[in-house]
Amino acid sequence: MKENMSGCSVEESMRLLGGRWRLLLVSYLLEGPKRFNDLRRDVPGISQRMLTLDLRALENAGLVKRTVYPTSPVRVEYEVTEDGKRLEPVVKVMKEFGLWLKERDPVRVAND
Amino acid sequence: MKENMSGCSVEESMRLLGGRWRLLLVSYLLEGPKRFNDLRRDVPGISQRMLTLDLRALENAGLVKRTVYPTSPVRVEYEVTEDGKRLEPVVKVMKEFGLWLKERDPVRVAND
Repeated sequence: MKENMSGCSVEESMRLLGGRWRLLLVSYLLEGPKRFNDLRRDVPGISQRMLTLDLRALENAGLVKRTVYPTSPVRVEYEVTEDGKRLEPVVKVMKEFGLWLKERDPVRVAND
Repeated sequence: MKENMSGCSVEESMRLLGGRWRLLLVSYLLEGPKRFNDLRRDVPGISQRMLTLDLRALENAGLVKRTVYPTSPVRVEYEVTEDGKRLEPVVKVMKEFGLWLKERDPVRVAND
């Protein structure tokens, strides 16, 4: 039962974070607030639509906050919330695992 | 540049682990070797086809080993490899985050 509950918790996390880009977006936002176009530049592989959807999902989950500044043109910034900072250890282990993966398979990873 | 490389590493990890089920499967396999049908029971939401594909992806990445025992009927077991054990800290933080998420939003998570 306990294992089962823990299993469920992994599923819960992955349901929210399991997309290819969400944790990557969080990893950039943990550096500080960013505008939409900053994130597009940081993550060149993501489409504008996917970026919008992923940011909205993170916002709906209370992990990212979107602030609109009434400048002209309007400036929209995204930042991690206090809850979002709980993803710091998740991002950390994913980075470490990804680094190890790239060192193990430099060619395969590049050609993927 | 350093941030960028770390960012890439998160992407690398998520490219391999980002599906909804893969880390969950690894979390069950970290308990010990399992047969295909054990995993189907552990993860009732997954289709047979998806389970096959996810196990194969983990196998191709060298994280899971598939062993066929020449019994009758043939017995096929899956287990994590030494490399796969590197996912233990990843599973751990995902569990912790998922638990926190469920405690924070018991209703939302249940209705998702």
